Amino acid sequence: MSVVNIKDSDVDIIIGALRSDLTSFMNEWRSIFSRFHLIIVKDPDLNEELKIPEGFNVDVYAKSHMDHVVGSSTSVLFSGYSCRYFGFLISRKKYIVSIDDDCVPAKDEKGFLVDAVDQHIMNLTTPATPFFFNTLYDPYREGADFVRGYPFSLRNGVMCALSCGLWLNLADFDAPTQALKPGQRNSRYVDAVMTVPARAMMPISGINIAFDREVIGPTLLPALRLAGEGKLRWETMEDIWSGMCVKIVCDHLGMGVKSGLPYVWRRDRGNAIESLKKEWEGVKLMEEVVPFFQSVRLPRTAATAEDCVVEIAKAVKQKLGPLDPVFARAAEAMSEWIKLWKALGSGSLPL
Amino acid sequence: MSVVNIKDSDVDIIIGALRSDLTSFMNEWRSIFSRFHLIIVKDPDLNEELKIPEGFNVDVYAKSHMDHVVGSSTSVLFSGYSCRYFGFLISRKKYIVSIDDDCVPAKDEKGFLVDAVDQHIMNLTTPATPFFFNTLYDPYREGADFVRGYPFSLRNGVMCALSCGLWLNLADFDAPTQALKPGQRNSRYVDAVMTVPARAMMPISGINIAFDREVIGPTLLPALRLAGEGKLRWETMEDIWSGMCVKIVCDHLGMGVKSGLPYVWRRDRGNAIESLKKEWEGVKLMEEVVPFFQSVRLPRTAATAEDCVVEIAKAVKQKLGPLDPVFARAAEAMSEWIKLWKALGSGSLPL
Repeated sequence: MSVVNIKDSDVDIIIGALRSDLTSFMNEWRSIFSRFHLIIVKDPDLNEELKIPEGFNVDVYAKSHMDHVVGSSTSVLFSGYSCRYFGFLISRKKYIVSIDDDCVPAKDEKGFLVDAVDQHIMNLTTPATPFFFNTLYDPYREGADFVRGYPFSLRNGVMCALSCGLWLNLADFDAPTQALKPGQRNSRYVDAVMTVPARAMMPISGINIAFDREVIGPTLLPALRLAGEGKLRWETMEDIWSGMCVKIVCDHLGMGVKSGLPYVWRRDRGNAIESLKKEWEGVKLMEEVVPFFQSVRLPRTAATAEDCVVEIAKAVKQKLGPLDPVFARAAEAMSEWIKLWKALGSGSLPL
Repeated sequence: MSVVNIKDSDVDIIIGALRSDLTSFMNEWRSIFSRFHLIIVKDPDLNEELKIPEGFNVDVYAKSHMDHVVGSSTSVLFSGYSCRYFGFLISRKKYIVSIDDDCVPAKDEKGFLVDAVDQHIMNLTTPATPFFFNTLYDPYREGADFVRGYPFSLRNGVMCALSCGLWLNLADFDAPTQALKPGQRNSRYVDAVMTVPARAMMPISGINIAFDREVIGPTLLPALRLAGEGKLRWETMEDIWSGMCVKIVCDHLGMGVKSGLPYVWRRDRGNAIESLKKEWEGVKLMEEVVPFFQSVRLPRTAATAEDCVVEIAKAVKQKLGPLDPVFARAAEAMSEWIKLWKALGSGSLPL
């Protein structure tokens, strides 16, 4: 089992609070979260006081902390879903698990409660296999292995840096898809984890993820902010952008990204049709973003996640910057973020 | 539903017979196979007469047909599991489904019989998405779609050329793995189909596959023959080699390969420990084969599957040939195969 060698104190669970009343959310997660230290980051746009039930080991951060830390920088913004990145910055733990506040624990096909934290940690602490595809999914899972023809020299795998979980009930579709199929809910529990192959690009969702903060922490960053960004997932692109950064950095540094289990249950929220107008901006941007990330090549000298982000920011400024001001701002935010990370995220300066 | 536009007469089911008594095999598949035309190709090393139950629309081919067709060529060998390739060559149908004779229909998680042919045809007749990874698996499946962040310009997908199914009970492990874990059986039914991303290499198993013969037929070829090849799957590599060819040809021509559903139930057969000595040859060869295929680049002028195989054969001869005579023989067999395919497989000459 993977949880060997991992202490509960190596994990921070980070929740971005976009709603003030977290009572029901926290109570649903109590049996899973209560062993861990939690960081709750309040959306700076939220005025009401947070309601958090008792019985958790939790630190809460709000706008005043952000102002203190970020100081005069105006490029790095923590509003809306991006508030969680403040938690990523100030955590001092090796592993981070981050789950949206409209998700509750899912049940598997047999009706058992899914321990999403345990599954994420298992994904992160067993190797990833990005350099050759295994048709029977995660070869390190109990009952599975590498199939015939899989090169033995690749069977040790590489470090897994990011674990991307999925969603039952309300899936992570964009607003046009959700508006076109308003009744569509995801009910298919696919009992699999896999490594997404090297050089394959993917739309990483920030709803239900975990990562190794020590190795790729700086790549999870708030950079792409839509002009009309709202407080619903389908109105945001920050995680998609950040996810493209993580994936190319993992490919460059020879680390893996897994996708699949664990599932969370996403509660319905918001009106997709009302969001339609906002989302098209993001949809259009992706047509520029994907070819850019598919063609970015990082120099060999970029040997850490920080180095890689600095290089990506330069390329964004140069190649995407002229196309839309949103990209120039993203590049600026990425550079600023690395400065912040070096000063604070690496633990070199006290908070 | 995908089966729209596909007539049963567009499909050939091809079975390589390595055992003489197919009674139980055919009866287990009767409800699924009986709608289709079957081609049964008898392993030329098998002396006894085939036992095939009545009630099927079936053509049987044996060594005499092979001798007639292949004539004086000694490079293309149809012995053992490779006998099925003779069926691929002489079929005149658009779609081919090929299943090993030690497999029977599987049941899904709800206990329903899996119609493997229907699922393969569905995989082949809905688009593949090799250029961007969809975290919710096949977006064309009922109840699924493209997730947020998936570029709209890539949502039409591309043609799916190959569908690779999986195995319950005895999975397709190699002899060392099976010998190390003699009791291991695959019991996890993963309810998913996915496109394997472009440029990701994979170990394609020939146990349970289907393909579009018109577009990639010539790439499924008998070329790599181990010196000590036997009559058990874990003693063979022909399908792994052929699979590497198919994948790079699909990547080059902009077509997709899917993996996942349908499952078949593989019956136990053979003694893994006795096969151990033979298999290591294949295991060692893969250490050369995988880097070779990962680095092969086909010229733009290679516009058909035939062109691509000719180019791969040249590169095999040049780069792998000096390492081991098995590769030089494989290159020769590939060139010969394309000559045969042009003469017979394309239907330009009568049988």
